[in-house]
Amino acid sequence: MAKKIKVTVWNEFRHERKTEAIAKIYPDGIHMAIARALRANPDMEVGTATLDEPEHGLSQAVLDATDVLLWWGHMAHGEVSDEIAARVQNRVLEGMGLIVLHSGHFSKPFKRLMGTACTLMWREVGEKERVWTIDPSHPIAEGIGPYIDIPHTEMYGERFDIPTPDQVVFISWYEGGEVFRSGCTFERGMGRVFYFAPGHETFPIYHQAEIQKVLTNAARWAAARVRLPQACRMVPAIEKITPRD
Amino acid sequence: MAKKIKVTVWNEFRHERKTEAIAKIYPDGIHMAIARALRANPDMEVGTATLDEPEHGLSQAVLDATDVLLWWGHMAHGEVSDEIAARVQNRVLEGMGLIVLHSGHFSKPFKRLMGTACTLMWREVGEKERVWTIDPSHPIAEGIGPYIDIPHTEMYGERFDIPTPDQVVFISWYEGGEVFRSGCTFERGMGRVFYFAPGHETFPIYHQAEIQKVLTNAARWAAARVRLPQACRMVPAIEKITPRD
Amino acid sequence: MAKKIKVTVWNEFRHERKTEAIAKIYPDGIHMAIARALRANPDMEVGTATLDEPEHGLSQAVLDATDVLLWWGHMAHGEVSDEIAARVQNRVLEGMGLIVLHSGHFSKPFKRLMGTACTLMWREVGEKERVWTIDPSHPIAEGIGPYIDIPHTEMYGERFDIPTPDQVVFISWYEGGEVFRSGCTFERGMGRVFYFAPGHETFPIYHQAEIQKVLTNAARWAAARVRLPQACRMVPAIEKITPRD
Amino acid sequence: MAKKIKVTVWNEFRHERKTEAIAKIYPDGIHMAIARALRANPDMEVGTATLDEPEHGLSQAVLDATDVLLWWGHMAHGEVSDEIAARVQNRVLEGMGLIVLHSGHFSKPFKRLMGTACTLMWREVGEKERVWTIDPSHPIAEGIGPYIDIPHTEMYGERFDIPTPDQVVFISWYEGGEVFRSGCTFERGMGRVFYFAPGHETFPIYHQAEIQKVLTNAARWAAARVRLPQACRMVPAIEKITPRD
Repeated sequence: MAKKIKVTVWNEFRHERKTEAIAKIYPDGIHMAIARALRANPDMEVGTATLDEPEHGLSQAVLDATDVLLWWGHMAHGEVSDEIAARVQNRVLEGMGLIVLHSGHFSKPFKRLMGTACTLMWREVGEKERVWTIDPSHPIAEGIGPYIDIPHTEMYGERFDIPTPDQVVFISWYEGGEVFRSGCTFERGMGRVFYFAPGHETFPIYHQAEIQKVLTNAARWAAARVRLPQACRMVPAIEKITPRD
Repeated sequence: MAKKIKVTVWNEFRHERKTEAIAKIYPDGIHMAIARALRANPDMEVGTATLDEPEHGLSQAVLDATDVLLWWGHMAHGEVSDEIAARVQNRVLEGMGLIVLHSGHFSKPFKRLMGTACTLMWREVGEKERVWTIDPSHPIAEGIGPYIDIPHTEMYGERFDIPTPDQVVFISWYEGGEVFRSGCTFERGMGRVFYFAPGHETFPIYHQAEIQKVLTNAARWAAARVRLPQACRMVPAIEKITPRD
Repeated sequence: MAKKIKVTVWNEFRHERKTEAIAKIYPDGIHMAIARALRANPDMEVGTATLDEPEHGLSQAVLDATDVLLWWGHMAHGEVSDEIAARVQNRVLEGMGLIVLHSGHFSKPFKRLMGTACTLMWREVGEKERVWTIDPSHPIAEGIGPYIDIPHTEMYGERFDIPTPDQVVFISWYEGGEVFRSGCTFERGMGRVFYFAPGHETFPIYHQAEIQKVLTNAARWAAARVRLPQACRMVPAIEKITPRD
Repeated sequence: MAKKIKVTVWNEFRHERKTEAIAKIYPDGIHMAIARALRANPDMEVGTATLDEPEHGLSQAVLDATDVLLWWGHMAHGEVSDEIAARVQNRVLEGMGLIVLHSGHFSKPFKRLMGTACTLMWREVGEKERVWTIDPSHPIAEGIGPYIDIPHTEMYGERFDIPTPDQVVFISWYEGGEVFRSGCTFERGMGRVFYFAPGHETFPIYHQAEIQKVLTNAARWAAARVRLPQACRMVPAIEKITPRD
């Protein structure tokens, strides 16, 4: 039997404990909703971690045992310790996959990996979003049709300040008149990164089957295939070198 | 008359004050050798800055007045303050160009902008390097032939841990048997970044006319065209939105 | 004085002679409307060529003297001779710029340069289009704000079957619910290619100032910088080779 | 049991029947050497096809049943019919993988898919080649170390006139002083394309275990995942459109 993909779903887990309306949608937290969806896949073994656990639930041992990490954060990016943000970044560079969700565009690990401001335009009025599949042969779009409709969403609009993605898998249309590169892939070091915009805490977006399918696909696509820490090394010449004059 | 390009050449300026053999090649520092070469271009106005000046010579005012910054550092990357590294990164994101030279691959500003380990293989035996032009129509390769020969160089070999560059302008061949993506372009925010590998302190590489031509081209290519700080902003809908049910 | 950019605007020029409503918008043809707009730039020298001229107006001599070619075609792609399509392609590979307009996505030169089907979704009901600037620091976006509104347009929707562009400069939002990568850059050989979607013959889109500004910027960006025909060549070794055993 | 990958190895099959020295290395043709190597993989079902078969062995039925096609041609590119070259191109655009080997850089299918001249420098003196792994986490590099040594090779040198690849997986170093992007990936339509330079007919390169491993990896990576023919289609609006004034 093939080795299972070890998934860790990380959540800041604040909104759900603070705001009743949000707790109604995600009673045990966004991380649990996503974890449940991923656990439906027999090839995955899914754990969770949250901000207020020791080391934010992301000890080196946990990360070492993680093939792909999903990251949801919003109101408490600043409370993530720099040390643990660097730990996540380094683990990605060694080969771990990272799926950054919605407001995670402004999280420390994502900003460190992108090197850019990761800013965007936004509006929260519950408008309609249509997520268009730009790259239908991409593994992340497997089983997804020409588009996914999301009835009520937070708008994220361009200019999204990221490096040019390797692949733009999805672009979103919004009722209010904006567009957004809402599904983007990047490679950093040995690791794969997928940013996926849909998923505001006040809407049941992670309960939507197509969104769960995208996350499933993304977890498979991003899961670590190798672990290759990179280091500077002095190396001897392979060929004979004519001595300097 | 067209506005001049404001260039600042930054140098750690330690090797040249420490090691006689290096001082012989660059008596007033690598930054002065490069600045002199760039000053031969009537469209450029060239200043310099070094590590041991206050704020490393890179006050906000200096960066504000800089269209393109060249960066040479090697033995003292750790002495560059995090604050000033972040200031350089932010200025690039707003539109300033950055040309990172040789051992600057491991500098704080470059690593922050790339988000990767920026590691590589190396060897310092004074072997021959041949810098091949991969993208002859790129503005940085203007006036450069199929290749540049460097008689004695420090070898920088792959795997170079960087994100996939926008363009690989040069790839180097080394006598000892390695290859290296030695001229790479990136865009980060509104700014352009060029990494150029040739230029070890113990060799007179920056005195070589073709290398000076590459730096001239790169300064013109990377020079800030806009200044557009990016920020997250809440924006009203442009189109009428049907109220949520 | 700097050398002027030699622009040739090519138009199929059929719609305007066939349909009165179109002739009203572009009385002397789309090519003349675009040429007039570009001639307002003192750094450009602008000629035109049309399908029904001998060699479609694109003799080798004309192409040799062209730095950047704009291409508008729609109903008569099949009447463009394969020989001349290949001639345009080859001239791009040698360094000429090519700006492909609207329905030119299905023209022979564009399809030859892309290697893909270049298919898309479409609808012609005169809906609203909003062209978002994704890459505000790109020279083609110079002077363009966050977006351009086009009151009435033909919708072009994804999936647009092109290779991943080097840069996506613009993405369009449509009233009817679609998105489109409406401004894309590519490099092919020594030449630069820009595809720009807005511009249906039944709407006065090329009379819009912002659209003319984009075409002006694009002509400057794409204008040939070099002329370097590429050929396979047998080359002697530069380094001494140890004889085969 | 998972569905097997259907591989077709295509060979011009002329050199081996014409030149005794080549026949000694590949007695039943390069295609049979490669097919044997790939058949060692239990997840692959491998057929072959050659130029002199009817329809070059590439009927629509054969292509329909092929997940990934390998292409070796050299002296008879011009004898491949345009119709069948277009058929291969179209099948790639629909989702079939294509692995183009060595002198296949100048084959009709590859040139049609790239849109460029696909020219390069070359020299055939049996010098040493070292194929460096640039992207060690790429599935095509699985199980390959930092480099592969090829004792005797035909040199292929830059400038290689191709569009910027999605990923440069390998770069070659040559004893005579050149470099080459020898392993490049591209996506065209729904299909994946891998160009791999090593493999001249006068050298036993395809008998080398590491080269066979690269081809195995590439066949798995490029194998069709979807079959999605693309077509232009008129589509109704999804959203209500305000009637034109």
